[in-house]
Amino acid sequence: MLGSTHGTFTTDLRARVVACGEQPGNVVHGVAAVPGDSDVSGRPLHAAVPDLDRFFRPESVAVVGASDAEGRPNTGITRQLVAWAERVGARLHPVHPTRETVFGMPCVPSVGALPEPVDLAVLLVADPLPLVAELAEAKVRFAVAFASGFAETGADGAAAQARLAEAVKGAGLRLLGPNTNLNAFEKFRDDLEGPAVALITQSGHQGRPVFTMQELGVRLSHWAPTGNEADLETADFISYFSQRPEVGSIACYVEGLKDGRSFLLAADRAARAGVPVVAVKVGRTETGARTAASHTGKLTGADQVVDAAMRQFGVIRVDGLDELQDTAALLARARRPVADGVVVYSISGGTGAHFADLATAAGLSLPTLSDAKQDELHQWIPEYLNVANPVDNGGHPVGDWRGRKIIDAILADPEVGVLICPITGPFPPMSDKLAQDLVDAAEATDKLVCVVWGSPVGTEDAYRHTLLGSSRVATFRTFANCITAVRAHLDHHRFTTAYRSPFDEAPRTPSPSFRKAQALMRPGRRLSEHGAKQLLRAYGIRVPREQLVTSAAAAVRAAGLVGYPVVMKASGAQLAHKTELGLVKVGLTSASQVRDAYRELTDIARYEDIDLDGILVCQMVARGVEMVVGVTQDALFGPTVTVGLGGVLVEVLNDTAVRVPPFGEAQARDMLGELRGHALLEGVRGAPPADVDALVEVVLRVQRMALELDGELSELDINPLMVLPRGQGAVALDALAVCR
Amino acid sequence: MLGSTHGTFTTDLRARVVACGEQPGNVVHGVAAVPGDSDVSGRPLHAAVPDLDRFFRPESVAVVGASDAEGRPNTGITRQLVAWAERVGARLHPVHPTRETVFGMPCVPSVGALPEPVDLAVLLVADPLPLVAELAEAKVRFAVAFASGFAETGADGAAAQARLAEAVKGAGLRLLGPNTNLNAFEKFRDDLEGPAVALITQSGHQGRPVFTMQELGVRLSHWAPTGNEADLETADFISYFSQRPEVGSIACYVEGLKDGRSFLLAADRAARAGVPVVAVKVGRTETGARTAASHTGKLTGADQVVDAAMRQFGVIRVDGLDELQDTAALLARARRPVADGVVVYSISGGTGAHFADLATAAGLSLPTLSDAKQDELHQWIPEYLNVANPVDNGGHPVGDWRGRKIIDAILADPEVGVLICPITGPFPPMSDKLAQDLVDAAEATDKLVCVVWGSPVGTEDAYRHTLLGSSRVATFRTFANCITAVRAHLDHHRFTTAYRSPFDEAPRTPSPSFRKAQALMRPGRRLSEHGAKQLLRAYGIRVPREQLVTSAAAAVRAAGLVGYPVVMKASGAQLAHKTELGLVKVGLTSASQVRDAYRELTDIARYEDIDLDGILVCQMVARGVEMVVGVTQDALFGPTVTVGLGGVLVEVLNDTAVRVPPFGEAQARDMLGELRGHALLEGVRGAPPADVDALVEVVLRVQRMALELDGELSELDINPLMVLPRGQGAVALDALAVCR
Repeated sequence: MLGSTHGTFTTDLRARVVACGEQPGNVVHGVAAVPGDSDVSGRPLHAAVPDLDRFFRPESVAVVGASDAEGRPNTGITRQLVAWAERVGARLHPVHPTRETVFGMPCVPSVGALPEPVDLAVLLVADPLPLVAELAEAKVRFAVAFASGFAETGADGAAAQARLAEAVKGAGLRLLGPNTNLNAFEKFRDDLEGPAVALITQSGHQGRPVFTMQELGVRLSHWAPTGNEADLETADFISYFSQRPEVGSIACYVEGLKDGRSFLLAADRAARAGVPVVAVKVGRTETGARTAASHTGKLTGADQVVDAAMRQFGVIRVDGLDELQDTAALLARARRPVADGVVVYSISGGTGAHFADLATAAGLSLPTLSDAKQDELHQWIPEYLNVANPVDNGGHPVGDWRGRKIIDAILADPEVGVLICPITGPFPPMSDKLAQDLVDAAEATDKLVCVVWGSPVGTEDAYRHTLLGSSRVATFRTFANCITAVRAHLDHHRFTTAYRSPFDEAPRTPSPSFRKAQALMRPGRRLSEHGAKQLLRAYGIRVPREQLVTSAAAAVRAAGLVGYPVVMKASGAQLAHKTELGLVKVGLTSASQVRDAYRELTDIARYEDIDLDGILVCQMVARGVEMVVGVTQDALFGPTVTVGLGGVLVEVLNDTAVRVPPFGEAQARDMLGELRGHALLEGVRGAPPADVDALVEVVLRVQRMALELDGELSELDINPLMVLPRGQGAVALDALAVCR
Repeated sequence: MLGSTHGTFTTDLRARVVACGEQPGNVVHGVAAVPGDSDVSGRPLHAAVPDLDRFFRPESVAVVGASDAEGRPNTGITRQLVAWAERVGARLHPVHPTRETVFGMPCVPSVGALPEPVDLAVLLVADPLPLVAELAEAKVRFAVAFASGFAETGADGAAAQARLAEAVKGAGLRLLGPNTNLNAFEKFRDDLEGPAVALITQSGHQGRPVFTMQELGVRLSHWAPTGNEADLETADFISYFSQRPEVGSIACYVEGLKDGRSFLLAADRAARAGVPVVAVKVGRTETGARTAASHTGKLTGADQVVDAAMRQFGVIRVDGLDELQDTAALLARARRPVADGVVVYSISGGTGAHFADLATAAGLSLPTLSDAKQDELHQWIPEYLNVANPVDNGGHPVGDWRGRKIIDAILADPEVGVLICPITGPFPPMSDKLAQDLVDAAEATDKLVCVVWGSPVGTEDAYRHTLLGSSRVATFRTFANCITAVRAHLDHHRFTTAYRSPFDEAPRTPSPSFRKAQALMRPGRRLSEHGAKQLLRAYGIRVPREQLVTSAAAAVRAAGLVGYPVVMKASGAQLAHKTELGLVKVGLTSASQVRDAYRELTDIARYEDIDLDGILVCQMVARGVEMVVGVTQDALFGPTVTVGLGGVLVEVLNDTAVRVPPFGEAQARDMLGELRGHALLEGVRGAPPADVDALVEVVLRVQRMALELDGELSELDINPLMVLPRGQGAVALDALAVCR
């Protein structure tokens, strides 16, 4: 049965009017940090895991605003809570200022009058703020606030929410909501076994399909409807669920993350525990992001950054709720894969070919079965059928004793970790037996057995009873979702096996470079090219030999020191588009050319009315691969590090990869692999391979700089970074830095 | 009820042993051409539409190999045919050499002994070849060959199939199969109304889900299981279905196309008729293609070419069978869109935001509703909810009289062509009423109304009865499939509105360039750079002024004529990688530099043992955008034209677009738009916009060359084509041509 509470329908509380005259406030960024344990930027390295046992399984509950009056919205909610309390054996205490009883239970007029300390208070009142002090005094541990009209409605609501958050913070209380509902206390099936999915959603309606999976036999252990997250947030529930033994995977529906760091710390905790997190994160497009912001009042980070952050910490991002269901269910239930090889087994060569095509395109590995294995399969499958993988049995063998033999033989192959059987058309004489054989074989193996039941009807017995009745077979309705889930499963185990938490290695104290760098910063201003390059030098990033000069004679002297040929460029804090303005001269080979260039550059600057701090006389650097490396601020995650192909390419293709600190060397290398034009670094058309090690080192030094100068540096752009042939390093030819 | 015949299970006929000693043969390319009506390459410009009325609705049928003996596979098939004949009122005549009756019906010993000329003969024999002459003599119009063991099994089988095809061609008979089944004669629901889906599949099992859609209320008019396509092929059925009034869309499952041109001519016919064709085409990856080939013995063209060919002719390619079902069903039933605007309407802000995000990312247009429209909606929807689009009603209004008002008001907006209502969680008090309102509103409008029923269970009344009971509401189970189908619907109508058949404009006779070009060809050999450039000149494609010289003195004279500065390059038929070998000298500004360069180039060639036909002295061309334009042969479609970004980019990014001739100027322009780096042509970093018109002209001239020289030219590569700033043209700086 589907429950009758529904996330988005918080009844008359939605109409709560926000008091006039309130000031807009910021969303509270509540990372529960362990004091003193932070990285060099001041961001926490650990988040406490809230103990939510008594939230999800309270022994005593107060319902503030309880009602049994006909037609009142709170009556329906109270009725549900009463039923829930009876079911789980919790003691329920109605609280209402004027009622004597509610549904026959004695009612107290206030929280202070409760007959015992309660674990949880459900607040069915339009404004929960005035209650907080009372709840604190009564030592209530958890509260759920239904009221809407907070950050989701605009600035006034956000201010009200900030006040509520502030009050809760001082009260020794943890609050769910506001703008949430009863989803955490729905009727969960308790007859299902095996690892469960735990669900976190910011919208009740959007969580319903995952909850409903219980009707298809998928066990669900918890549902956290986080609403506006004034206090408890998605990250808290991820951390908590990742420590629960019954949780096999965590499914999240996220519209906006409350705080980037707390999310990463939670994802880190799940990665360490090997518990997969699967998430829909709204905001692929600007439209989505804008709408999401207006719906839950959260910061929405640039999507590329969110995507990268999730990948760094092994969070599996999917787009559809159907993918969320299917992927979370598979990852909860499948055991650790023993091999990456996938075999596609079907009763139709066409089906096998089609599935294999899509699976291979998605990056799954379909090994060709050995000759010995093929011979073994041909004992039961006619010779003229292809059994190399995909395995086509032609149909008939599934109808008799051979069917099970074939499945067992495939599963016995050490290269095979996953067997997938797509059944696009049900044909009971064959598919019923096939389904039963697959269920039986899955019970007898640790390997993953997947079935795609392709009939659009879905009421067939083999599907409803045989397949969905097994918790050992993963059953899908579409090829695409099966492939997505299997890919996520294999990737996730590869990820957790190799995972080392970057928080363990994150720098906690400033490096010696920091002091030097600080002296170079100009608060609120842009540094000149020369200043920005000095900043890079402070962090050990190579720049060309260069001198800043303010006379033609000094330019000639500098050229002698730097060494011919030289490049000369105008240098000034407000200078952009130097090349387009003719403010760069390359390949100057003599003193007279240097003198002429000096004159020309200063003339142009005068004519264009540009303020210069001088002319740079720079060493000419040999040709290599032009890259860009930079630091950008993300509203959600703070400083991020970007690397991309330089030159015209970065403008035309925007071929960049981004990471959220902290990250290690392996991630820096992965960034390069994500670039579409990464082959350029390997050397094309006879060019030598580039010094990738030096490039990686620059990326890591830029990360260090971003963290240490978090308070001082708002933007950095090395463009181009000339990456020379292997062994020769990388040189920052130009740079831009903006101070806070 | 699902039928009990099943495409892949052709019973004991699968075990047919191919006679030894047969020679491998080619797959027959049977384009039914109107003689004399062909383009300059000799390819047909029209294909005849076969009259298949009597195939799908025969009045009399012979079953050759009929049986009623217990346990014989042919008995099951005969039983089904008897039942089918009774159902449709056809006369059935069993044919068997020894039986007197079959299922009580009189049996004749041979086709020659049939009591009347029959429309269709179903051949349940292991080798249909010996029957063909007999069938021809008896004037049988259509035959279906069940036997397998043909092209799908390898070279011997392909030879047997070629002999069968040859025999059929001379017999005045049209044959379906071999390696096919009874799918065309299944039990179709006749109680469904409105435009139908017609289905074509090369694998019976893979067609089953589309067939089963009838159980969800989607009308199906035909199913053509084409098997090995020795005679009748997918293209024949597309042509036929596109002319049938009851067909609203054509759904195809294709493993390998028999012939590229016949497919394009059929797609052209469907495009002219405005009948959408939706296709799964296996072969996204090499693995898929390999397996597909072994399954049906077809040529599988390079996937990028297949993709482009389908797009050129408006065929909608999808990957999954579920997408095929949902897209074909929508396109069959939806009326011509009156506007492109999509409104997302939901009972949850989260659902609306999520759907809008994915829809926008997929390219759908979600217009912001006018202030007046929003005011109108706020009569029924609380003020604090967002109704700009997505429209969030907060839930309650759907439960009463307001629900229908809101839907009608949205549909009345002239900017709105499509209303999509995602219902992710069923909540009967609201969703049942909402579903009914949507069904009622859909009956009263010409606009498209879509619902996504997100519950994974799918047994709910509102889904099974209310929504699926309406042929006016398009109901989906996932956001993704709804978005794919709506996008395809809008795109298809945009496509057909603008469609002009390229076959009407295709060149039928050689241009004056052809004679000049023919004289330059060297059969079986590669042309030198100079030769290839002469070929380009013959087709009016600009090349630099250049002279081929064989002495230093001649080089200096040539430089004077060409004009300084010049470029000098070694020229020879077998020469590749000239730059890497140092065989190109640029920017030569004096006679002495030219003399030195001549000596150096000939020295290198001697040292590297390279055969030269001389040294090219070429005009230096101003800088522009480097592109590549070329001709490649595709096994399925013949010559194809490719355009791409030149220089290092083509190697690193393979940023190319391809088209199958014939195509017009609009398609040539679309090619440029498909390039990821197309912004380079618009001018970046202060560069002027490139002469796109000149580039398009080169592409069209290369197409003409590819068609006229189809018999002589196997490969052409202009690399780079320097596209100069707008108004200045495009110049082929280097070229390579391979003659057949």
